[in-house]
Parts: sequence; structure tokens; C-alpha cells
Amino acid sequence: MAQKPSTPKGTRDFNPLQVQRRNYIIQTIKRHFELYGFMPIETPSFENLSTLMGKYGEEGDRLIFKILNNGDYLDKVDEDLLNNKDSNAMISQLSDRALKYDLTVPFARYVVQHQNDITFPFKRYQIQNVWRADRPQKGRYREFTQCDADVVGSNSLLQEVDFIKLYDDVFTSLQVNGVTIKINNRKILAGLAEIIGAADQLIPFTVALDKLDKIGEERVKQEMQERGISSTALEKLQPVFTLTGSYEEKLEAMKGLLSSSEIGMKGIEELEFINQSLKSNQLKTATLDLDITLARGLNYYTGCIFEVAAPDSVKIGSIGGGGRYDDLTSIFGLKDVSGVGISFGLDRIYLVLEELNLFPDSVRAGVDVLFINFGEMEAAHCSGWLSRFRESGIKTELYPDAAKMKKQMSYADKNNIPYVILAGENEIATGKLTLKNMMEGSQESLTIDEIIARLS
Amino acid sequence: MAQKPSTPKGTRDFNPLQVQRRNYIIQTIKRHFELYGFMPIETPSFENLSTLMGKYGEEGDRLIFKILNNGDYLDKVDEDLLNNKDSNAMISQLSDRALKYDLTVPFARYVVQHQNDITFPFKRYQIQNVWRADRPQKGRYREFTQCDADVVGSNSLLQEVDFIKLYDDVFTSLQVNGVTIKINNRKILAGLAEIIGAADQLIPFTVALDKLDKIGEERVKQEMQERGISSTALEKLQPVFTLTGSYEEKLEAMKGLLSSSEIGMKGIEELEFINQSLKSNQLKTATLDLDITLARGLNYYTGCIFEVAAPDSVKIGSIGGGGRYDDLTSIFGLKDVSGVGISFGLDRIYLVLEELNLFPDSVRAGVDVLFINFGEMEAAHCSGWLSRFRESGIKTELYPDAAKMKKQMSYADKNNIPYVILAGENEIATGKLTLKNMMEGSQESLTIDEIIARLS
Repeated sequence: MAQKPSTPKGTRDFNPLQVQRRNYIIQTIKRHFELYGFMPIETPSFENLSTLMGKYGEEGDRLIFKILNNGDYLDKVDEDLLNNKDSNAMISQLSDRALKYDLTVPFARYVVQHQNDITFPFKRYQIQNVWRADRPQKGRYREFTQCDADVVGSNSLLQEVDFIKLYDDVFTSLQVNGVTIKINNRKILAGLAEIIGAADQLIPFTVALDKLDKIGEERVKQEMQERGISSTALEKLQPVFTLTGSYEEKLEAMKGLLSSSEIGMKGIEELEFINQSLKSNQLKTATLDLDITLARGLNYYTGCIFEVAAPDSVKIGSIGGGGRYDDLTSIFGLKDVSGVGISFGLDRIYLVLEELNLFPDSVRAGVDVLFINFGEMEAAHCSGWLSRFRESGIKTELYPDAAKMKKQMSYADKNNIPYVILAGENEIATGKLTLKNMMEGSQESLTIDEIIARLS
Repeated sequence: MAQKPSTPKGTRDFNPLQVQRRNYIIQTIKRHFELYGFMPIETPSFENLSTLMGKYGEEGDRLIFKILNNGDYLDKVDEDLLNNKDSNAMISQLSDRALKYDLTVPFARYVVQHQNDITFPFKRYQIQNVWRADRPQKGRYREFTQCDADVVGSNSLLQEVDFIKLYDDVFTSLQVNGVTIKINNRKILAGLAEIIGAADQLIPFTVALDKLDKIGEERVKQEMQERGISSTALEKLQPVFTLTGSYEEKLEAMKGLLSSSEIGMKGIEELEFINQSLKSNQLKTATLDLDITLARGLNYYTGCIFEVAAPDSVKIGSIGGGGRYDDLTSIFGLKDVSGVGISFGLDRIYLVLEELNLFPDSVRAGVDVLFINFGEMEAAHCSGWLSRFRESGIKTELYPDAAKMKKQMSYADKNNIPYVILAGENEIATGKLTLKNMMEGSQESLTIDEIIARLS
């Protein structure tokens, strides 16, 4: 019986126009990754279950798509677990593999596995799909594409500077003007936790602070108090809530606050270096903004952290982010390798370009020119011309059947084909073909060579 | 505890050089797909289980990777099945989704689902990964990339002609000279089965015939006899086993044999049309060869079928294939839509290019130029130059630390970076930098503008 076909929840088909538009963004990101010295690697879609589990917290583990073992997968399952229908405990007995949840953990696995073949510092980029069994919502899918660039094996802050320039270059190239690159440093957050006597509560402290945008000062303070941070501590923290001014001014204010914290001052110093470096080589269209409340969720960050906000006119949250992590590969046994990386959020960038109408007209589906089919004899004549057009780089097709002219023109129209060539018996005899411009409705009588020169 | 990291069996990591080489092949195929009027679509990595199951035969069903449902996946499982540990019968209760097994069934699903938004004939290409739980072996992996182009909604044989030209163009462009495009027609096979009185045994008949290359005439005949085909019938078939000569000569011989079969003669006619069409527009480097024993396994083919053999010097089997199918979308409820398509075998084409040493030198990983890092002051000076190089399209990086010269040169060397720039205190003062050609070992003193002109 025929089935009513559909895609699984949270997944999408992409039609030709959508693929071309996604590729336009991907190619722009890719080109800049390579100009900055990042080279592509690819890792498998699925990893061993043990590679992924336990790396993303309990919630992350739940959202990983596990692959059922092939063959008689129940054969070796523990009887007790089976009788108790203990889904959770049985997973590792039914499933040896899982779809990757991000590109970072597989990258760490790659670096450790291939460490003897890699020359450090290793600059790689990776543009691949990842999968999460999240509840789908606007701009959030169960299969989506991540675009990551990372350097591992270098402590130099020049990497951070390069990543800021890279963000600026990519969004400038995509004509998305007015993005804000928010920057902070985990060392500053650690310093703040230290001076208010909450060094052992760094995570809940930063989690609460991170919400300032969304829930406001009072509720952040309330949450911190609930987590055991004293009123005296919160008073010390007051300057953070009211920080204003330029990058330098904010840094100066923080310097006063953090003067007694060694780690905090180290964070300040790093942010000063970055600001200094960008003075002689300024950003084109992006703004760098110091945001002391920026925390980013992932616990592996240890130094600078970034988040890119779309232009104010588009309400969409962050379109990129990243930061420095000092010990990512240690989960797979390689210690003391510092890394820093950034990510571009393809789906959200797509929505920004769509909303701001920034996809160039040249990014479209459909061929450049359609030959109308007048019948077998004429079609045979066109065959050699088709080859010449294609060799000149012109996307060309011949309508496959000698259908009614109206049908053929409607095909050109619906596929947004800009030019149509009419080569009937007369045209073939005289060597002058009719080139019809579908946008303007005009037409001209030209030789094949003239048409090729015009279109290539 | 640290885990010893690895990729799952049958899957691969690709290093930068491998990714660039794969992309070189993919981009070549893609460019030609588009020149021929095919437009890209993409479908999700996983489909509903019901979309895939039952489409590839029992063996295929077994090789599909099923995804375990998230959450308490055992909750709704039938108690009896659970108690009997009936792995097979339980699959559809544990798993709603599965990784796609090929691009053809998802494409059929796409066409049916989006039929109202599609203008027929619909020419699409799709270059995406698929997954099969096959036993891994040389050139066969559990995750691999398929490159497919299909037209649906046109009966015209001009499509077949175009596909042959497309194969020829792609392999010519990749400099793989001497491929053989084998062609046959399922209607001829149906005609043969008809005239020997085995019309109801078309599938076992073609399966046996398909093995002629591998097991030889005697054993093919033996297999046919075991399947109930009589000696008299086999005698009638004798000309097929001894067929030689050119495309035309073989067709002429077959014409005699098939004269009483309407469907057989239709197949002959189609192959004649294709041959005729290619006379006025000849192939560049490929040879079209009529191979009456070519059957191709997939039962959905109904007309012309293709298979591409690598040049004789490379022992690797087929590097592409395809054919016409008249009723693929009917499994999803859309009847009478004829389609024809071809596929390129990326992994095998990669092996062919590797074996014949055909990857261009320009296809490589690594930047074009490395700036040596002489210290903080010099690095700051280089920063603006880096931007200018990148804006000129030159892949450029600055070594991130002022490490020993030997270490920096070794980094350039190991990453096959062709040029290194030395911009120390003196060079910065005079404005003349040292450009070192790493291949030739030579060096020159040039201004920034001169270097940019040289490298871009």
C-alpha cells in the first residue's frame, strides 16, 4: 500500500534554492576559514557510544541519538534489565554507536587518535551535521549543520585576535553589517567568584550571571542568594551589574574590582592585549563589546569566550560563539593541550540573511539557458551546441520533449530560467538563433558564438 | 579515566589532504551536474523507519541502521516479544527512524511529498552520505557518499544521451581516460526471457546472466538450468554468449534474435536512437560499449541501464551506474512517473585517481604562505599585512608564537607550505621582506605589494 510520506519530526528537506543559499553561506565561511589557515577534516556521523556518553552532562546524554545494534541485538542483554524494562540501563547493551552530538568531542577524539600524524599547532575546520533529540522549535532542528574552526596546541592570544577578525570578515562578506562580537574571559568570572568568596561555586555563579539579559538584575541576585551567595558578596558585585562605557572603560572599572585576584587580573590582561592588537588592524563592520555577564554554558571553557549577536533589527539570539579551553583532549588521555575555537550557527545565519534580504540574486537554482525543443531533427541539431555551452561554463538544458511551446515556456518561467533559445527549422538554416530574455521579455537574433559570448 | 579512542568499524576520519581530494572530485561532479541542468536537493540523514523498510529486499532491511527511540523506549514494547527476546519483531516498537540506505528511496519520497511544488520534468542531483551495516572491505564502508543525478517526469531518451555525455565529461575532466560506459536495456533482457519461454523467470534469468564476466559461460548455463530453463531455450540463447563486434554489429545480431519479441525490439530501438544521437556529438575519452549481459541488481530498472568500468589498468569494478525506472514513486502513491538516473562511486573514483596519480598538485592542504613570528612587536606589524594577503585571496597564517626559527620552518615544511615570509626588525624598517620559496630553497627581498602580486 502507498504510504503518506513525510520527514521525521525536527528534520527537513532542502529544495534547490535552499541548498544553493545554504551553500552560499557555507562557501563564504569555508573560504575565510581557509584564508585564515584552517584546514578541513571530517569525522564519521556516528561514534562509539563510549566516546560520546558522559561528555555533555546528564541532559546531553539523554539527547544523543543511539543506534540500535544490528543482528540479534537482544541476545546478549542482561535478563534482569530486560524483565525490569530498564530502558536507561540497557542502552549500552543494545547500542554500540551513536550519532554525533557536536563537532568538538569528535575533534578531541581525532586529535588524540592521530596525535602522531599531526603537526601542532593544528588548525582545523569542520563543517558537518550533528544530531540532537531536542524538542524542535523555530531555528532549532534535530539534524543541523555546525561550522567550527579550532586551533589546538597554541597558547597564543593571537589566535583569539584572528578569530575576532575572522568573524568580522565572514559577516562583512555576507553583508550582515552591525553584528556585535561579545567577548569576556572565564578568568574574570573566576576572579569575581573569588573576590566575593564563592570560588567553589563558580558554575552556579556564572550560570546565574549569564541570565542578566533575560531575567534582569533583581532576579539574578535572588538566584545567587538562593545558591548561598551572601548579601555582602552581592554588594561587592554591584559594579558588574551597572557597568557601562567603552571596552576600555569597562576594563578599567573591572581592574579596580579585581585588583586582589591574580586570575582575575590575568583575564583583564588578556582582554587588554586583544583590544590593543585590534587597534592597528580594525574591524570592518562588526563591533567588539566587552560583556562581563557573558558566561556561555559549556564548562570546558577556561579563557576568552565569544558570542556573536545578530544586528539589532533581527531578533534571533546568538549566531556564533566559542572560546578557549585548556584541557579538552584530556578526556581521551592527551593532557596540557590548549585549544580555542569558534562556531557559526548556519541555520540562524540563514534566517538573518532571509529576513534582511541579503541573498545575492546570483544565488539561485535553475539553469542559465533553456533550448526549446522543436522536434527530433532540431533537437539533434542542438546537441552539439549544448556541449559547447556547457564547455563555456553555461548551465544549459534542452527541454526533453517537443511539447507545446506554452508548456516549455512555463517550465522556464517556473524554474526562473533567465534565457530561452529558440532554434527551429528557420533558425537552424540561417544560423541565427533567437535569444529570449525572460526577465525583460525582449528577444534578439544572434549566432551561437554571439550567444555564448553574451552568457559566459 | 582516559579512553583509547577510535572510530567505529567501517567508518573513517578524513585528514585535510583527504578532504581536499574528495572535494576536488565532488566539485567536479557537482559542476557538471549543474552544467547539465541538475539542481541540488538534500534530504535528512534519517527517515521514518516505514519509509525505508521493505524497499531493498530482506537483506537490505537487515543492513539498515535503526535508531533507538529516545526516552523510555521499552515502555510500549509488547511483553511477549520482550520475553521471547524477539529482536527482529521488536525493531519497529523500539525504533521509529533509520539512517538512509541510499539516495533513491528518499528522493522518491521527496518527489511524492513535494509534488505540488515541483515543475516536471524535475532534474535533481544529491551528494550526501548513506549508511549500510555491511561487512567492511576494501573500498566498502559503513558510511559513504553517494553522488546521484536523476530526472523524473520525462520519457525522452535524450536524458539517457545526456547522462552518457555527462559521464564522459566528468571522467574527461578528472583526466581518467579510457573508462568504458557499458549500456544495456532491461527490455532486451525481458525480450530474451520471453523468446526462451522464461518470461516469468526474468529476475533469476538476469541474475544468472549478469554473472557471465565472473563465472563464465558454462556455469551461467548450469545456473540457468538449475532454475528450470530448458536446454532448447539455452540453445536459442547461444548467440548472446558469443556476441562480439562493434555496438552496431552486436545490435544487428540481437535484432535477428529478438525479432519476434515486441518488448525486445523496443529495447533495440532505444539503443539505436542513443547510438545515433552520439554520432553527431561524440564522446571525448570514454567508450560506449553494448553489453547484453549487463543486468544490474536493482529490480526497479525497466529501460536502459548503465555501468561505468574504470580504465583497464585499474582493477576495481564499477565506478558508476544507473538506469531508467518507470515506477519508483508508486511505492509512495504517485503512479506513472518515469525516471532515469546515474550515480558516481566517490570512494572508488578516489582510489582510481590515487592509483593513477591524477590528483592535481594544486589540490593540497595547507596555507599558501606562513609569516615567521619574530616576537610581539614584529607580529603586531604583520597583522595588517595578514589582512591584505587574505583580502587578495592568499591563504595566510602567522606562526602563533615566537618559537625557534627551526621549529617554525619545520611547521612550514610538514604542512607543505610553499612560501615563508621573514619580516624581522630590519625587514620591517626597510619595507623589503624576505620571501622564501620552500620548494626551491631560494629567497628574494621584495616589498609587500610585490609579494602579493607574486602570490595571488
